[in-house]
Formats: sequence, C-alpha cells, structure tokens
Amino acid sequence: MTDVPMTARTGPKAANASTGEILSDYLTAQAGAFLRALPQAVGEAGSRPGALPVGGASAAAAAGTDELLRAVRRVGGALHTFAAAFDPDWAAESRTELRWLLSLLAQEPAFLRRSARLLAALDSLSETDPGGPGMLAGHAGAPKARALLERQLGLARTRAHTTVLQELRSARLHALADRMTLLASEVPLLDGAAGQEGGVLLSQAAVAFGALAEDARRLPLGRAATPYGGEGLHRLGAVPPAREPEPVRARGAEVDADSAVAADDAPWHRVRILVKRARYALEVCGAPDPDLDLLDGTLGRHQEAADAAVTVATAARTPRITPATAYVLGVVHADQRLEVEAARYAFGHQWPKLPHHGWQEWATV
Amino acid sequence: MTDVPMTARTGPKAANASTGEILSDYLTAQAGAFLRALPQAVGEAGSRPGALPVGGASAAAAAGTDELLRAVRRVGGALHTFAAAFDPDWAAESRTELRWLLSLLAQEPAFLRRSARLLAALDSLSETDPGGPGMLAGHAGAPKARALLERQLGLARTRAHTTVLQELRSARLHALADRMTLLASEVPLLDGAAGQEGGVLLSQAAVAFGALAEDARRLPLGRAATPYGGEGLHRLGAVPPAREPEPVRARGAEVDADSAVAADDAPWHRVRILVKRARYALEVCGAPDPDLDLLDGTLGRHQEAADAAVTVATAARTPRITPATAYVLGVVHADQRLEVEAARYAFGHQWPKLPHHGWQEWATV
Repeated sequence: MTDVPMTARTGPKAANASTGEILSDYLTAQAGAFLRALPQAVGEAGSRPGALPVGGASAAAAAGTDELLRAVRRVGGALHTFAAAFDPDWAAESRTELRWLLSLLAQEPAFLRRSARLLAALDSLSETDPGGPGMLAGHAGAPKARALLERQLGLARTRAHTTVLQELRSARLHALADRMTLLASEVPLLDGAAGQEGGVLLSQAAVAFGALAEDARRLPLGRAATPYGGEGLHRLGAVPPAREPEPVRARGAEVDADSAVAADDAPWHRVRILVKRARYALEVCGAPDPDLDLLDGTLGRHQEAADAAVTVATAARTPRITPATAYVLGVVHADQRLEVEAARYAFGHQWPKLPHHGWQEWATV
Repeated sequence: MTDVPMTARTGPKAANASTGEILSDYLTAQAGAFLRALPQAVGEAGSRPGALPVGGASAAAAAGTDELLRAVRRVGGALHTFAAAFDPDWAAESRTELRWLLSLLAQEPAFLRRSARLLAALDSLSETDPGGPGMLAGHAGAPKARALLERQLGLARTRAHTTVLQELRSARLHALADRMTLLASEVPLLDGAAGQEGGVLLSQAAVAFGALAEDARRLPLGRAATPYGGEGLHRLGAVPPAREPEPVRARGAEVDADSAVAADDAPWHRVRILVKRARYALEVCGAPDPDLDLLDGTLGRHQEAADAAVTVATAARTPRITPATAYVLGVVHADQRLEVEAARYAFGHQWPKLPHHGWQEWATV
C-alpha cells in the first residue's frame, strides 16, 4: 500500500466531534434509512409474484430492498468496528438480528443476479452471429442447458421469495424494527465512551484496517498475479491452510471438488467482508473511500462468479440430463471459474495500489 | 519491433559468399540429414507396435522421425523463400513431395503429444491431493472421460501409424529419397542465380520477414493483450474476415462452433508458418535467431492447444457417453481454449519485442 498523509484521507468529523456525536449521527441516519426502506421492501416483496421471469421489472422494483440491505450492512459494520462504545449484549444481539435479516433479504436478489450472469454467459458462449460467435455457437446442448439453469434458479428464487414473505410478517422482524426505531431516536452509548474525543474512532477503524491488511497479506496474490496460470482450474488448494475458515473435508487423504473449491474461495470471501467493514468504518469517520469501493466491487464479482460456478456444478448433477446439456454446463462452469480468476487477478493489481490511510498511525491515538 | 543494427544480426556467410555457395552448403547439409534420418525413422515406425500405450518408450524411439521432420521443414522453407534461385518446376514439385511427407510423418507424434497434453490436463483438473486439488477433484466423470480420450486418440494414432507403415514402402517415398540424394550431391541452381553475391539472399529473407510482419499486424493482438478478456471463449469471430484462409461456413446468417473456432484460429496458424519460414531463412543466411525460436514455440503451443480442443469437442459428440463424462469434457475443452488464449497473450507480449532484423533495409540490397 502506498503512503497517503492521514489528514488528506480523514474527514473533519473525527477531528472536531466527540465519539458519541459521531456514532449517534451515523447510526441515527442509518436506522432512519432502515425504517424508511422497510415498508417499501415489504410492499415490493408482497407485490412480486413468486416466479416472475428473470430480469425485467423486478430489478427496478427492488429499490426498497436494496436500501434496506444498505442500512443493515452499515449498522452491523459500525456495531462491530466500534463495539467498545456500546453495551456488549445489546450490540451482539443487534448484530445477530441484522445478520439474520441480511441473509433473508439478500437471497432473492442474489438468485436474480446469478440468473442474469449465467444466462448472459451462456448466450454469449452460444452466440451464432458471424461477427462474434462463441465457442458453443449453435451447440445443441445450449438451449437445454439454458432452460435447466433458468428453471433451477427460478425455483430457488421462488423458495427464497416464499421465505421472505413469511418472515416479513414474523415477530422477529417486528422486534428488529422496534430495535431500529429506538436506535433512530437514541443511540445506546456506554457512558464512558460517549464523551471521548472523535480520534478514538480512528484507532478503532485502524483495527478494522489491520485485520483487512493481515488477511489480504495471506491471500495467494503472487499466484493470482500471473494471468493464465490456469491455477484456478488446476491448483485450487494451494492456499495456506492455517487460516481457512472452512477446512477441507478430507475423505481419507482425498478431497472432493466442492469442498476444495469452497476452501480455495473462503479466504477471498472473508477479505470481502473485511473490506466492507473498513469501508463503513471510514464512512463513520466521515472519509468515504473510492478505492475501497473498487475493491469491494471486485470481490463482489469474485463471490458472484464463485457462487454461479457452484450453481452450474449442481445443475450438472441433475438426473437424466443429456450429455450435450452436461457438456455445455461443463464449459459454463469453467467459464465462471475463469471469472473468479479474473477477479483475483484484478484484486492483485488493485490491492497494492490502495492508499495506506495511515491506519498504523491512527492505532497509536 | 525494436531496432537492432542489421550487422549485429546477420552472420558472416551472407557477406562473404555467393548465393550459390550459401544455398548449396545449406541444402546439401539438410538433404544429408534427411538421408541419415530416413532409415532410422523407417526402422522406428516398423519396430513400433500400432497401439502402443501413450507415453513411455515411444517418445524416445521417435528421434529419427524428429530429425527427418526437421530436415523436411528446412529444405521446404529454403525452396520457398529462395525460390528465385531454383528451377520453378523442380522447386514446386519438391515442395509438394516434402509437404506430403511432413503431413504423413507429423500425425503420429502429434497424436502422442495431444494424448499427453489432454491426459495431463485431465489428471491435473481431477487431482484429489489436498495440497492441490483441481476443480474436478473426485468427479465421477473424470476416469470415464480419460478412458474415452485415451481410446479415441489411441485409435487415431494407430490409423496414422498404419498409413505411415504403408507409405514408407511406397514408390512415392523412394522417389523423394532419390530427389534428396541428388540434392545432397548437387543443388540444382539456376545459372544466373548461383553467382550472385550473398546479400541477394538477405533481400529474399526480407520478403519472408515482410510477409510475417504483415500477417502479424493483422492479428487481433490488442484483444489478446488483455488477460482474462474471456474473448477466446466468448467472441471468437472478431478477426478481420478479409485474410481468413478458411472462411466461415455460414448457414444462413449463422455459424457453427467448429467453423467459428477454425476461422478464429486460422490466422494464428498461418503466422506460425510464416515465423518458421523467417526462422529458416535466417538460418540459411547464417544468423539463427533465438527470438524467432521463442515465437515458434509459443505458436506451437497455440496450435497444439487448439487441436486438442477440437479433439475434446469431437469426443463429447460420441454417442451414449454419460452426462458426467460429457460435463468433464466440457471443462477440459474450455481449459484448452484457455491455453489457446494464454498462448495468444504470450505472443502479444513477445512479438513487439522482436528485434527489427533490419529486414526493410535488406529489401533494398
């Protein structure tokens, strides 16, 4: 990471306001956004048919859900990074409930995006226009593979949608909404923390940056830096095993492809979470950062391609599909793993250019 | 291409000897190599069982065939580039017969190398060692796909072998051997050409370089320069159609994948031939060039990966294979097309660094 003077990166808030003022301003605003978006998201879910065709009107109709997810991620991130300012039990409970809502609401849009990604890839691979045909141009298996993916992702989306409709009426969501209503009016800060000078938040943001830098350092960036190493298809497990959140499930001395791929992807997914936490920590301190947005986007593409590859591998195990269909799914699977590699290559070039943010100095405040 | 002074690149021969001396020395030596290698290659073919398992002793046993192919390519290249020095009918006939022997002898080793390439890729992709599992680790289709590829390439190799055994006893080969025997004792130069100063050969080598530079300029190097553009899988036909030796066979406004891929690969295969011609032309002039060797090797990998991808696509059309087998073949096909892209990316970085060779100045000699 290159050095950038700390003052050039930190906003005025952290310098002039108290910890209590800064956290209250931020969390009140985010809780307010949550409460404004919630009824809109509920209305969207209710008005949406369960098996709406992919794309079309549904993407625009999810604006409330997007806003809600945006607020949920930010409140959760702030409660994690600045945990010292809050009652530990209240913060832990709040984060648990926010994570529950996040995983509930994120599924349906994720299936929609995955459909769009995979069908676009398949259409591009099987494009028959002479100006730009794909390697599956005119292949008999392409329409069948397309129909299979569309059907399976449509079913997954319908299931996610049904769950959302049930949970949006649940006592659990009402309790979370009450919790956010309280947060919007008064942020429950610990007495000792509220009056501290704002610079204290910088040292806590520095911890978030330190965790990100530490995990990013352990990524196999050297491997990802060489384009077309083919490692993403051939040498999945060559990551340091010590930090793997999901250990490879050994079968004797062997592994299966699913667990090997999951173990290979896990450290990257973890770094994405840490990038988001660092990004929101800077937002709280009044210094939003375009470089972290870029990294977040790159690792978002990484995650979506990795998830899409899993969907294709699963679809290929559907009983009674034709060999032509399976063949096309094999090509699409490899294509998505190639997208995973491309995202890692991009991250490997973006990460070293990330400004230093002076977080090591903040830590001494 | 960067500029290198012509004198630093050209050997002493072209400066001090006549055209006749230089061409005679070179062709006599190559014809001699041909005649020494021919009985060894015949013996190798005769002692080789038709359906020998892939790899193993057969690779070492093909040294005579390799030497023979080496001489065939060089004589053919010199007769093409320096055609002005020879009787046109004799040179054209000789080149036709050399091309026939080249395509006859090159097939069996090519199937051997293709087997080794594809089985290694499949083994790597389905590797189950926890230290480096592949994306097909433990996949049920991998052993079946391996057996299918091994069987089909073994059959193709056996057919090629049978043809070689038949043709090695043919009158056509004896006539070619007689032709080479004559060439080894006296090179049939035109009277007017033999006494010219050696620099004339440089101007003829310059024409070979010019043809290479012209075709390389038309390659979509800009497209290949971006790693992970995914173009190799998605946008095959985006090459200028004017110079495609094998035009896309349109079905109405559509193309199929095989013809689209062939049209996409053809200009690269053509440039490989031109690289070889330029390489042998420099050899004749006494200035062998390590950079052209490198380009030749890169485009050789390109061709072998492209041919291997076709083999996999063909294998996937075998009736009654299981979906799991077809799926694995789809992954392997995409993997080989990725190797094609990797070779193009490498060429795109090697070509601009090729020293200029001063061929534009030679052309004015």
